[in-house]
Amino acid sequence: MDTSTAAARTGPSVLSRNASQPLAQQLAQRFAARIQQRLLLPGARLPSVRDCARHHGVSPYTVVAAYDQLLAQGLLEARKKRGFFVRETRPQSIRTPTAHDTPAQAPLPPPVDAGALIRGMFQADARRSPGLGTLPAEWLDLGLLQSTLRRLAAQADDALLSGYGEPLGDERLRRALSRRLLDIAIHAESDQIMTTVGATHGLDLTTRAFLKPGDAVLVDEPGWAIEYARLSQAGMRLLPVPRGAQGPDLAVMRRLIAEHQPRMYVTVSVLHNPTGATLSLAHAHQVLQIAHEADLLIVEDDTYALFAPNHAPRLAALDQLRRTLYISGFSKMLSPAWRVGFIAASPERIAQLTELKLLASLTTSPLMDRAVALCLDQGLLRRHAERVAAKLEAARQRCVRLAEEAGCRFAAAPAGLFGWVDVGVDTERLAQPMLDQGWLIAPGILFSPTRQPGTLMRINFATSQDARFWRALEKARDALRR
Amino acid sequence: MDTSTAAARTGPSVLSRNASQPLAQQLAQRFAARIQQRLLLPGARLPSVRDCARHHGVSPYTVVAAYDQLLAQGLLEARKKRGFFVRETRPQSIRTPTAHDTPAQAPLPPPVDAGALIRGMFQADARRSPGLGTLPAEWLDLGLLQSTLRRLAAQADDALLSGYGEPLGDERLRRALSRRLLDIAIHAESDQIMTTVGATHGLDLTTRAFLKPGDAVLVDEPGWAIEYARLSQAGMRLLPVPRGAQGPDLAVMRRLIAEHQPRMYVTVSVLHNPTGATLSLAHAHQVLQIAHEADLLIVEDDTYALFAPNHAPRLAALDQLRRTLYISGFSKMLSPAWRVGFIAASPERIAQLTELKLLASLTTSPLMDRAVALCLDQGLLRRHAERVAAKLEAARQRCVRLAEEAGCRFAAAPAGLFGWVDVGVDTERLAQPMLDQGWLIAPGILFSPTRQPGTLMRINFATSQDARFWRALEKARDALRR
Repeated sequence: MDTSTAAARTGPSVLSRNASQPLAQQLAQRFAARIQQRLLLPGARLPSVRDCARHHGVSPYTVVAAYDQLLAQGLLEARKKRGFFVRETRPQSIRTPTAHDTPAQAPLPPPVDAGALIRGMFQADARRSPGLGTLPAEWLDLGLLQSTLRRLAAQADDALLSGYGEPLGDERLRRALSRRLLDIAIHAESDQIMTTVGATHGLDLTTRAFLKPGDAVLVDEPGWAIEYARLSQAGMRLLPVPRGAQGPDLAVMRRLIAEHQPRMYVTVSVLHNPTGATLSLAHAHQVLQIAHEADLLIVEDDTYALFAPNHAPRLAALDQLRRTLYISGFSKMLSPAWRVGFIAASPERIAQLTELKLLASLTTSPLMDRAVALCLDQGLLRRHAERVAAKLEAARQRCVRLAEEAGCRFAAAPAGLFGWVDVGVDTERLAQPMLDQGWLIAPGILFSPTRQPGTLMRINFATSQDARFWRALEKARDALRR
Repeated sequence: MDTSTAAARTGPSVLSRNASQPLAQQLAQRFAARIQQRLLLPGARLPSVRDCARHHGVSPYTVVAAYDQLLAQGLLEARKKRGFFVRETRPQSIRTPTAHDTPAQAPLPPPVDAGALIRGMFQADARRSPGLGTLPAEWLDLGLLQSTLRRLAAQADDALLSGYGEPLGDERLRRALSRRLLDIAIHAESDQIMTTVGATHGLDLTTRAFLKPGDAVLVDEPGWAIEYARLSQAGMRLLPVPRGAQGPDLAVMRRLIAEHQPRMYVTVSVLHNPTGATLSLAHAHQVLQIAHEADLLIVEDDTYALFAPNHAPRLAALDQLRRTLYISGFSKMLSPAWRVGFIAASPERIAQLTELKLLASLTTSPLMDRAVALCLDQGLLRRHAERVAAKLEAARQRCVRLAEEAGCRFAAAPAGLFGWVDVGVDTERLAQPMLDQGWLIAPGILFSPTRQPGTLMRINFATSQDARFWRALEKARDALRR
C-alpha cells in the first residue's frame, strides 16, 4: 500500500515506570530510535497526543513532553492544526537540483517522497487495507507458485543453474512473451523483448536510456505516485496531463508540448491507476498522431494487462512499437516475489536498453525468468487470471453497492482492480481517523503529481468488501463535516 | 569473458552453392543479420579474409566481395592494416556528454564500449578461454545449487512466495551476511546490509546515490573494464591510480585529489582484478587517512572475497564502514544465476541506497535472496570455497610452470583466480591469431582505463592449464616478433 502513515507508531509499549529515566524521555528515545532506523519515515505523521497517551498508558502531558524533546532534537516538526511529523531530512544527493533545473523551467512542486509511499506496500495488513495497490496474497494462486518452484528445481539444468543467463533474459520466457503479446495484437519477436526486475525496473531503464536530467516528461494526472517520484528523483520535469474516461486531455497535451518540448509520455493506457479507465481507440489514434508530430517517445506501462480483456487497445498495438515502448510484468496477477517484468520495443531501442542493463546489473536472474516461463507455458497463468476476473467482478459489484449506500460516488466507471471514489470530504484528512480505526486508505493526494488534496480516494475492489469499512468511512466523513 | 572478438564469426557454414544468390551475397547477408542481431557488436573485428575464406570454403575473392557489400551498406569499416570492423553506431543517448563534461575537465579518452566486452561472458567456451572472468561451471558445486533450489521449493512459505519481500532484502540472508562479515572483521548489523542484483547492481546504486554526472572518481589502474564503462556511461570522470603490489600509488592519488577533487574511490582491495594483488595493512591505513583528509567516499568491491583468506585486510574492516561502502556477491564462487550481491554501509547510507532501490525496482527477488541464505546457513558455501581454494592452488602452480616454460613472466605474485602475465609482445595484437586457433585471451588493453595496449594479459588459473594453449601462445608470440 502507499501511505506513509502505516509506520507512524512505536512498537509495543514497554515503557518502564521503575527505570531511572523519566517516562517522557523513554518515549522520546523510542521514537528517536525508530526515526533513525527509518521505521518512521520523513513526512510520517505521529499519533495524536491522545492516541499516543492511550497506547502507552501515560498521561497526555508525558507525550507532549516527549514530542517537545524530539522537536528540540530536530527530529520532528509541528504543523499547525495537523499534528507532529517526522522532519524531512532527505539525503542531499537525491534532492540536488541539476544544472538544467532553473526556476523558469521547473515550476513544479518538490518531488513526492516516494520511499515513504512505497514502504507501506511491505507492511500493510491486506484485510484492513482498502487502499492496497496489489491483489491480496489470498487471491493469488499459491498452489501454482509452489508447484512452479518445484518444477523449476526439477527442470533446471546445469547451464541454467550455473550461468549468468542471456543479457536479454531467458529465451524460453521471451518466446512465451512474444506469443502472449500476439494475443493483444502486438507483434514483437523474442529478441525485441528484454526482461527486467519487475515493471518498475523497466520504467527505470527507459528513463536512464532515453532521457537526461532536465528533460520534460508528460505523465497522467492522476497517476502513480512512485512513477512521479522516480522521474523527479532522476531530475525530470513532470508535465501532468489530465486523464479522462477516454484518455488524456489532448488540448492540454498539445499546449504542454508546445511550451515544454517534452521527450517522452509515460502512461497507463489500460485500466489506468487509479481511475480504472481505458484509452478509447479514437484517443489512442490521436495520441499517436500527436506523438508523431512532436517526436515523442511513448512508454506504455501495462502493469494491469492481465486484468484487462485482450481487445483493450494498447498504443503499442496501434503503432507496433515504432515509437512505443511496452512495459509489463507479473507482480499484480502472479506474484511480486519473482520480480520479473519486461520491455518490448524496436530492435534498436532494445539494443540500447540491453547495453544499459548489462552495465547496471549484467543480467537479471535467469531462474526467475524461467519460473515465469513455466507459469505461462501451459496456460496456467491465463486460467488463474480468468478465475481472478470472475471473482473481481463479484467483488466490484459488492463494493459499488456498499460505496453508494455509504453516500460515495464513482468518479470513473468501475473496472479492473481499482475504483476511484469521491467521498465528499478531503480524503487526506480522512486518512488519519480511518487509520486510527485500523483501516488504511489511499487518499487522492497520493495520485496527484502536484500533491493536491481532494475528495477522491482509490479503493481496491478485492479488499474493500467489508461493510464495516464503509460504515467507518461514513462516520469519519460525517465527523469531518461537522 | 571480456573481449569483443568472441562473436566475430558467422555461425556454422551453410552457404549454398546451388542457391539463386551469389555466394558473396549470401555471406554478406549472413554477416549483416548477425550485426543486426548484435551477435557481432560495434567494434568487433571480422575474421581475416583468408580465415573467413577457409572457414566457409570459398575463395578469398568471394570474401572480399562480401565485405565490400557490407562496407557499402555502412555496416563495416576498414581500418588500415588492421582489417574490417563492425561500425560504431552507439546510441546517442548513452554517449551524450553532460553539462559538466567540459573539455578542460574531461581530458580522458572516450568511454570503453562496455556492452561488447561483457557480452563475451555469455558466449565463451570456458575450456578454450584462458581469459575467462569467472570460475568455469564445472568448478562450481552444481549439486549444491540443485539441492538449494529443491530446498527453497520445499521451504518457501506463502508469504515468501506471494510478497515483494523487504526493501533491504531477505532478513534471513542479511543476518547470515552479518555473521559472515564478522569473519572478515567487519561489524555490520543486518539492517546495515542491503541486497542487490549481484555486486554490479550494488556498484551502480552507489554511483547513482552518491555521485552526480561530472564528478571525478578515483579508480584502480589496471582495473575492471566494465566498472570503467559503467562510471563513464553515468557521466563520471575517471582518475586512474596505478595499482602496485602493496596498493594504489599514494603520491599519484594525492596529486589527483589536489587537482580534481574526486568524490569517490572505487577499488578492489583484495585479490585485485586483474593483478591478484592484495592491499597491505600499511597501505590500507594510509588510503583511509588520505580519504579522511579529502572527504572521499570509498567503494570497496570485494567480488573475490570468497577466494581470499579471512585475514586479508579490507578497508571496511579498518574503518568499520565509516566512509567505506563494502560490496560483494556470490556470482564468482557460488553461481551467477541467483544474481545476488549486497552492500554493507553506515545506517544513513543504507537508508539512501534503499530509497533508491525502491524507486528503481521496488525490491529484488526475495526468493533468490533466500536461496543464497540456504547456501550460507549450514557452512555449505564455506566448504565449497575451501575445496575450490585447494584445487585452484594446484592449478596456479601448474599455470605458473607452463607460463614460465613458455617464456612468460608474472607481473604480480600469482594469487587468487587471476594471473597478470607479461607475454613480451602487444597482447591486443596477439588476441586475433590466438582466437583464430580457438583460444580466447584477455589482453591488457581491456584493463586499462585509457585503453593503452601493452604486453600484459590476464589469465584465469582455472582455465589456463592446457599445455596446448601455452604452446600456441609461444608460437603466435614468436610469429609477431618476426
